[in-house]
Amino acid sequence: MYELIRRINGVDDVKKFSLEELKVLAGEIREALFNRLTHIGGHFGPNFGMVETEIAMHYVFNSPVDKIVFDVSHQSYPHKILTGRKEGYINDNRFYEDSGYTNPDESEHDFFNIGHTSTSISLASGLAKARDLKGDHENIIAVIGDGSLSGGEALEGLNVAGAELKSNFIIVVNDNEMAIAETHGGLYKNLKELRDTKGKADHNIFKAFGLDYMYIEQGNDIKTMIDAFQKIKDIDHPIVLHIHTVKGFGYKIAEENKENWHWTLPFDRETGVTTVDFGDGEDYTSITASYIMDKAKKDKDLLIITPAMPSAAGLDVNMRKELGSQYIDVGIAEEQAVAMASGAAKNGVKPLVVTCTTFMQRAYDQISQDVCINKTPVTILLNYSSFDAMTDVTHLGIFGIPEFTNIPNLVVLAPSSKSEYINMLDWSLSQREHPVMILIPGNEVNDRKSDTDYSKLNTFKMERNGERLAIIALGDFYQMGEKLADEIENKLLFKPTLVNPRFASGIDKEMLKELKNNHELVITLEDGIIEGGFGQKIASFYGTSNMKVKNYGLGKIFYDRYSPADLLKKVGMDTESIIADIKKIIFY
Amino acid sequence: MYELIRRINGVDDVKKFSLEELKVLAGEIREALFNRLTHIGGHFGPNFGMVETEIAMHYVFNSPVDKIVFDVSHQSYPHKILTGRKEGYINDNRFYEDSGYTNPDESEHDFFNIGHTSTSISLASGLAKARDLKGDHENIIAVIGDGSLSGGEALEGLNVAGAELKSNFIIVVNDNEMAIAETHGGLYKNLKELRDTKGKADHNIFKAFGLDYMYIEQGNDIKTMIDAFQKIKDIDHPIVLHIHTVKGFGYKIAEENKENWHWTLPFDRETGVTTVDFGDGEDYTSITASYIMDKAKKDKDLLIITPAMPSAAGLDVNMRKELGSQYIDVGIAEEQAVAMASGAAKNGVKPLVVTCTTFMQRAYDQISQDVCINKTPVTILLNYSSFDAMTDVTHLGIFGIPEFTNIPNLVVLAPSSKSEYINMLDWSLSQREHPVMILIPGNEVNDRKSDTDYSKLNTFKMERNGERLAIIALGDFYQMGEKLADEIENKLLFKPTLVNPRFASGIDKEMLKELKNNHELVITLEDGIIEGGFGQKIASFYGTSNMKVKNYGLGKIFYDRYSPADLLKKVGMDTESIIADIKKIIFY
Repeated sequence: MYELIRRINGVDDVKKFSLEELKVLAGEIREALFNRLTHIGGHFGPNFGMVETEIAMHYVFNSPVDKIVFDVSHQSYPHKILTGRKEGYINDNRFYEDSGYTNPDESEHDFFNIGHTSTSISLASGLAKARDLKGDHENIIAVIGDGSLSGGEALEGLNVAGAELKSNFIIVVNDNEMAIAETHGGLYKNLKELRDTKGKADHNIFKAFGLDYMYIEQGNDIKTMIDAFQKIKDIDHPIVLHIHTVKGFGYKIAEENKENWHWTLPFDRETGVTTVDFGDGEDYTSITASYIMDKAKKDKDLLIITPAMPSAAGLDVNMRKELGSQYIDVGIAEEQAVAMASGAAKNGVKPLVVTCTTFMQRAYDQISQDVCINKTPVTILLNYSSFDAMTDVTHLGIFGIPEFTNIPNLVVLAPSSKSEYINMLDWSLSQREHPVMILIPGNEVNDRKSDTDYSKLNTFKMERNGERLAIIALGDFYQMGEKLADEIENKLLFKPTLVNPRFASGIDKEMLKELKNNHELVITLEDGIIEGGFGQKIASFYGTSNMKVKNYGLGKIFYDRYSPADLLKKVGMDTESIIADIKKIIFY
Repeated sequence: MYELIRRINGVDDVKKFSLEELKVLAGEIREALFNRLTHIGGHFGPNFGMVETEIAMHYVFNSPVDKIVFDVSHQSYPHKILTGRKEGYINDNRFYEDSGYTNPDESEHDFFNIGHTSTSISLASGLAKARDLKGDHENIIAVIGDGSLSGGEALEGLNVAGAELKSNFIIVVNDNEMAIAETHGGLYKNLKELRDTKGKADHNIFKAFGLDYMYIEQGNDIKTMIDAFQKIKDIDHPIVLHIHTVKGFGYKIAEENKENWHWTLPFDRETGVTTVDFGDGEDYTSITASYIMDKAKKDKDLLIITPAMPSAAGLDVNMRKELGSQYIDVGIAEEQAVAMASGAAKNGVKPLVVTCTTFMQRAYDQISQDVCINKTPVTILLNYSSFDAMTDVTHLGIFGIPEFTNIPNLVVLAPSSKSEYINMLDWSLSQREHPVMILIPGNEVNDRKSDTDYSKLNTFKMERNGERLAIIALGDFYQMGEKLADEIENKLLFKPTLVNPRFASGIDKEMLKELKNNHELVITLEDGIIEGGFGQKIASFYGTSNMKVKNYGLGKIFYDRYSPADLLKKVGMDTESIIADIKKIIFY
């Protein structure tokens, strides 16, 4: 097993194989992918579909002098195997040496840490522009999936490549007829026409952007791909190589259910069934899905908008069908999603935009300008808004609080229980005064009861009335605050105050003022970085008083693939460390 | 004069005119535009070019039931005159009643406050989607200039309109062959082909996005435009109406120098010369231009990248020519600009991205992901990063500090003098370790000397070593700090400490610790909103100590068309108010 893979120590070794050997190599790479993915999970469909293309690429081009930039880079596993990182796939003890994305720390064949979509053409255009300025002549190649093309940055990149670059630039469009879910938008009709006509359709979108163009139907055939790459290698102008591949190619179960096999948990190869047992408890994602399905039936003005992330709301393909015209997936296009929501709210319906926290920053300007300046009643739901969600450096959910809570007019709510989450959703969708963002909790579902009315903005809720110390514990860190309050009562023998602030975007000045009467210390707990966040607003409020304030949260750091529990300890947020701090401050 | 304009009290009055009268009306509207613009300045070219189209639009459609969304909305003056707001143009005492953009507070015919580009299609798509959900049937019209089409959000909007909307949706593409400066990108070759072939070119970009299409060569002819709109009124699917107009039509001086006449200061109509006297002192924009021109000659690795905002660096058309391949304008495409810069830095050159603060938030994700995670040595220059710059709600420069200083790895520098600005530029372009953002000062040029090395991050500079009170005055508020320190010495009879922090993105913990020895109060001054900003980091740092901290800055508010001096007073940032605060805190 892995006979040929084992002979690859550097990318030059790929060039030594015969065509027959390359075909065998493709099979071995799929075995290696199975080995990693059945054990630790990861992106399935994108990698299985691109095995042949990436072999051909490294056979023809001279990486790292020739430079390949993978969009999202979730399809770069074969590339990794071919560029000296086979052990992360064939050696069960070394899986965790490699990230799931390109990573310059791993290899000189990777140029960027990438994890968000639609960036490859723009990044590669910079490599090309610098090459030209320096008078060099290497090939610059961007590899982008059809799903990523709907993102504005990719389209901006096509536009610039089509006129402003006058030299070698190769854009490989990997067309597997899918985003994570199905694709959405007019350009996909165009891609279909191009596929149906073998590239001869009228109104070719790439040519419309001023680009040269070539179509390859057999993107999963090594020989075809080698020929194609040899033809365009060292080309003296920008070209789009549009290739047709099968997502998940080589695993029937994945080919037949492409959406579910975009990314996978560890699984059993025979059955395709995941080997991870989640138990059958509900989580906040499934609560979101149930809420939406129920609400949409009752309120025909509810409009769900997602930028290609229905999974962030737990909406599977059947639910989407059932939602009908009350659901719109705009493709990977966060800017469009948010601005469209503002327009829809303006015209009287109740838009609910849902995606992952890490992606919503792609619509920062639209949230600020199109929604918040206009005070349109849009509800934005952010999932995975926690240190305890995705831990890849490109997918962190820990920056949402400083990013969004400092935008005027935006009411950012941080629920601490299921009831509070649902009540906040209900309230947000019932009012027409404020844009609202809700940070879906990242912790276990808690069933504490809560209030239903949030119309008096920035009113914190006093949950336990104590003395000396007030714990202000935001959103999904409220339970941590509860635990801490219990411990303090046990160990320090006084009853601290416990506050559930509920609002992340403002402070309850009245309550904070009152706390001064019988408290000497306020501590803040928030699920994100401290700088620019919630707690610092409170520190600033108390700045000229005698109240001491200590803010707890994460550092302003791009953490990467960490253990969530260890991270909390490292930043001193475990109960023990906090109690030690409190002792020092209160009893000095 | 204004005979027909005076007869317009509501949009229905436009429909009562004969064609001949409409032509006369067009002339009157241009006179009214001259009246406003010669007196108070504003957008010239976009409005003069669209007079006939907007007359025809209101002649044919039934606003506000039919809904028109203007991109940027800087071309909406004729629309305003036609929808009950003539007084802001013909009555010299009422100019300031109307903003320079659409504004729902002014009229039911305006749907959004808009000022950033490329949003109209997305916003209008939301209006259309809501209309469909509600079962209504009005026309929804987006009006977008060719220059705005390069922005990702506009392209995302075309993609969604081309497949996801199945009902009435009209996109008027106003093609005047210009952005503010010349247009850039492949799609402009396509627009030219379409113009040259009267809409018959192969590879029509709009059709490639799945849209129906119609071309009108005579966009400045009222009859032609009325016919065109009548043809597509109540159409049952999305269509692009591509019209060719002349930017600045009707004023020869403007037609011949379109870039300079995109926007104008008050001017003399005979000569076209501005009537505002700026004196001949240098400002930070001209300093930026001189620096770039000089540096580019000496360092062939310097690459200037701008998203259609050369004016933010003071680069006129001759300078751009002189920069040659060291300059690239990517069109209105901030995402592309920033990601391209990251790629260029990665491949060894020294990219300097320049635009206005208010627009840079359009690339928030790219700054975070493409630049900062990758630590590529990109220099980002932000102009108009001050409360004392553009005061329209859509163009405020007061949010930059909280927006960008909380992104890990980004070194945000706030120079307080010309020397410091230039030394920071030199340092940033000489190092390969950090992404750097420099906030171009918004105040008068100051010639205080400064250090040349900024490699020790987050080291504040103690400019005056005093006692009791430390004033930490950031960037272009440093001079305010100096003045304040002088006043305190005079009035309160002690010498305060004065600190020039230089770094906006981190704090000098060592110095802050030392201040505890002989200071009881720290005050922070920053040119932007307090929340999430610089001063709150300092308040948080001192939270558990006895040091008192007071943060000065603006409120988390979308201010609109304010007097900068009054605003400072309103938030208590005039010297008098601050001294009163200090007295209270220190001497209580």
